Amino acid sequence: MNASTRTDPCQISGRREELLERYRGFQKQKTTLDMTRGKPCPEQLELSAGLLDCMSRKDFRAMDGSDCRNYGGLDGIPEAKGLFAEYMGVRPDEIMIGGNSSLSLMHDAMTWAWVFGAAPESAPWSRQTPAKFLCPSPGYDRHFSICEHLGIEMIPVDFRGNGPDMDVVETLAAADAGIKGIWCVPKYSNPTGEVYSDEVVERLARMPALAADFRIFWDNAYAYHHLGAGPARLADILQACRKAGNPDRVLLFGSTSKISFAGSGLAFMAGSPANMAWAKQHLAFQTIGPDKLNQLRHVLFFKNMAGIESHMQRHATILKPKFDTVQDVLGRELAGRGIVEWTRPAGGYFISINTRDGCARRVVQLAAEAGVKLTPAGSTYPYQKDPCDRNIRIAPSFPSMTDIRNAMGVLAVSLELAFLEKQQ
Amino acid sequence: MNASTRTDPCQISGRREELLERYRGFQKQKTTLDMTRGKPCPEQLELSAGLLDCMSRKDFRAMDGSDCRNYGGLDGIPEAKGLFAEYMGVRPDEIMIGGNSSLSLMHDAMTWAWVFGAAPESAPWSRQTPAKFLCPSPGYDRHFSICEHLGIEMIPVDFRGNGPDMDVVETLAAADAGIKGIWCVPKYSNPTGEVYSDEVVERLARMPALAADFRIFWDNAYAYHHLGAGPARLADILQACRKAGNPDRVLLFGSTSKISFAGSGLAFMAGSPANMAWAKQHLAFQTIGPDKLNQLRHVLFFKNMAGIESHMQRHATILKPKFDTVQDVLGRELAGRGIVEWTRPAGGYFISINTRDGCARRVVQLAAEAGVKLTPAGSTYPYQKDPCDRNIRIAPSFPSMTDIRNAMGVLAVSLELAFLEKQQ
Repeated sequence: MNASTRTDPCQISGRREELLERYRGFQKQKTTLDMTRGKPCPEQLELSAGLLDCMSRKDFRAMDGSDCRNYGGLDGIPEAKGLFAEYMGVRPDEIMIGGNSSLSLMHDAMTWAWVFGAAPESAPWSRQTPAKFLCPSPGYDRHFSICEHLGIEMIPVDFRGNGPDMDVVETLAAADAGIKGIWCVPKYSNPTGEVYSDEVVERLARMPALAADFRIFWDNAYAYHHLGAGPARLADILQACRKAGNPDRVLLFGSTSKISFAGSGLAFMAGSPANMAWAKQHLAFQTIGPDKLNQLRHVLFFKNMAGIESHMQRHATILKPKFDTVQDVLGRELAGRGIVEWTRPAGGYFISINTRDGCARRVVQLAAEAGVKLTPAGSTYPYQKDPCDRNIRIAPSFPSMTDIRNAMGVLAVSLELAFLEKQQ
Repeated sequence: MNASTRTDPCQISGRREELLERYRGFQKQKTTLDMTRGKPCPEQLELSAGLLDCMSRKDFRAMDGSDCRNYGGLDGIPEAKGLFAEYMGVRPDEIMIGGNSSLSLMHDAMTWAWVFGAAPESAPWSRQTPAKFLCPSPGYDRHFSICEHLGIEMIPVDFRGNGPDMDVVETLAAADAGIKGIWCVPKYSNPTGEVYSDEVVERLARMPALAADFRIFWDNAYAYHHLGAGPARLADILQACRKAGNPDRVLLFGSTSKISFAGSGLAFMAGSPANMAWAKQHLAFQTIGPDKLNQLRHVLFFKNMAGIESHMQRHATILKPKFDTVQDVLGRELAGRGIVEWTRPAGGYFISINTRDGCARRVVQLAAEAGVKLTPAGSTYPYQKDPCDRNIRIAPSFPSMTDIRNAMGVLAVSLELAFLEKQQ
């Protein structure tokens, strides 16, 4: 806390008037901006325009000769498994290609574990009272809502800048058989942007867990989603688990939702052959198979990993200036003043802001009243409860540069106003 | 039973030798034919070839202006809801468009009822010990396996040629609160081909059910899948339920799996607005939304119901001769001999054969040993147990005409051989 801001009421009052004038100015502009979700912008979607017309009437055979227009094949066509196995850093027998949504695959896996058990010989998690999940926070609201919907108790764990606080994770997992797993977004984490260190990956793989059916839900949603300097290195958790004698501990997820088209992409789940067999055993009851034509379409369009990597470089070229604008405005308005802290991610879709305790909800309210819609305060925490009421998630991908600059102006003023309100 | 076939052992023995010679002839041809599943044939898939190239790079906006390449929209784009509401005979607010699989939607609905309850105020079916489902049989194996996987007890109910035996259905539903619903394929039922009569529809809608959360799973998979004479009439069950004061009793399902591409089509679920709200409430936890581009692609290709109806006429033109071939061979080889009975469906994908009791398994075995793979005997019944071991499902859509003729030759001989074995 900077002493000068607290000690001079006149100075606070003057600054407050200045900010309120700017704030009322924003209100007069009748801005309506939505920065709530990590949505690709139209220019990003244009990068994949070729997906809409890359197929001809003759392109319906997979490399194994199967007709992708017909039934058959529960876990994806071989060329899609090959390409996205390389993408996920696993072997083709360690991956299955699903529909358009990795969230669905995570929901499926959690539901199978809940109703039937996380392995053939395991008891359903619904019989564990209560079943619990470790939730590194701030995290992804849709992960947390899957647990909340099923009634799985969520235990927040702090982040340390290179992954969750592993001392806490290890202590909890070793002590309580009711703790069935942990949610992880290991690269460019949503929203903190951090990348799990080799040590964190290694400890997650090796740590003793009292629950034999402990599962790491490893949502590698941003594996190649860097902001121009190439993707960060991430240790191979599947191999680490195998080496540690816990080969079935991790379920990996990914998708092309932020590579090709959001909602019309491909999603995949990876893991040990035993976990893949477990997944397919349950999946066979709920579908005859995924959309193989869309898989073929993606392989025709991207061709190989080099195709995906150059494509991601083009995404980065569009996204980098947007993230820079957020940094510029926050830096110019608020740097070094002890009002807020924020992240400078090298990839992913978010910037995470921490206000002083007790300000986040007020900031979101102030921004909304000036026309800028932010992700509701609290939503990055289990049960939508940020214990310190301080985290705000900024999603700069969708709006235009001008809109981001305006929105960040509103946000900067709202952040400082809320801060000053707390000083009084 | 024809007395002459039973009373003259010499005649039986002679006929048996004759059949065995033909059978050995088939075996020498080393046929390998698969008639297990209702798969469209390549010529049928070619009818929808235009789906592969009907989109251009500019076709990504839904009629409400939304960008189908991006996130958003849980229940489908308006034009797809409009078209398939008309297809399903419901209002646009009574339908949601899902992914590529109606089986997934049925599995979702059953799982939501199992884990959370079939309505907001209802108890989960998993808390009912045991929860039971009425299963008109012979029926669709994948319906039954959803129940079996969840542990819902299945009660077979006989068919009467125009739907299930409603006296039995009514008696059971009125007497047992554990009976939570019934599986129905109301038009060209799989595999019997029968169409539910107006009276059956009316009685299903009106009958008292002790379970307030009784649900009809109405899988109208073959709504327009006639064999050339136009689709049969089917009463409007949603309206009948509404009129009877049971507006939430029915969940309707359908798909284009056998209209456009199997596995790359569209699936939909329909029902009362309350049921749609229930479904969306749960669906929101498991996906951000369906593949809207594939929805747009289907609307661009089919345009309207007239487009779908003329398309279905072209399917019928391909399928009718295949069904006729089955009828020809069965008629020529087995008509009026008291050996088997079979259906003459006006639509759908199957012909259902009833042997004398205790013969079906042997017939399937004999056919397999001569290279013709049939759906395993018993699989049209709950728990794969045909109490009379008599039902065999024939799926003639996929093989060529020549292959069907050969396969039916094998089958006719196998049917009679199994029959004669029983006479000895």
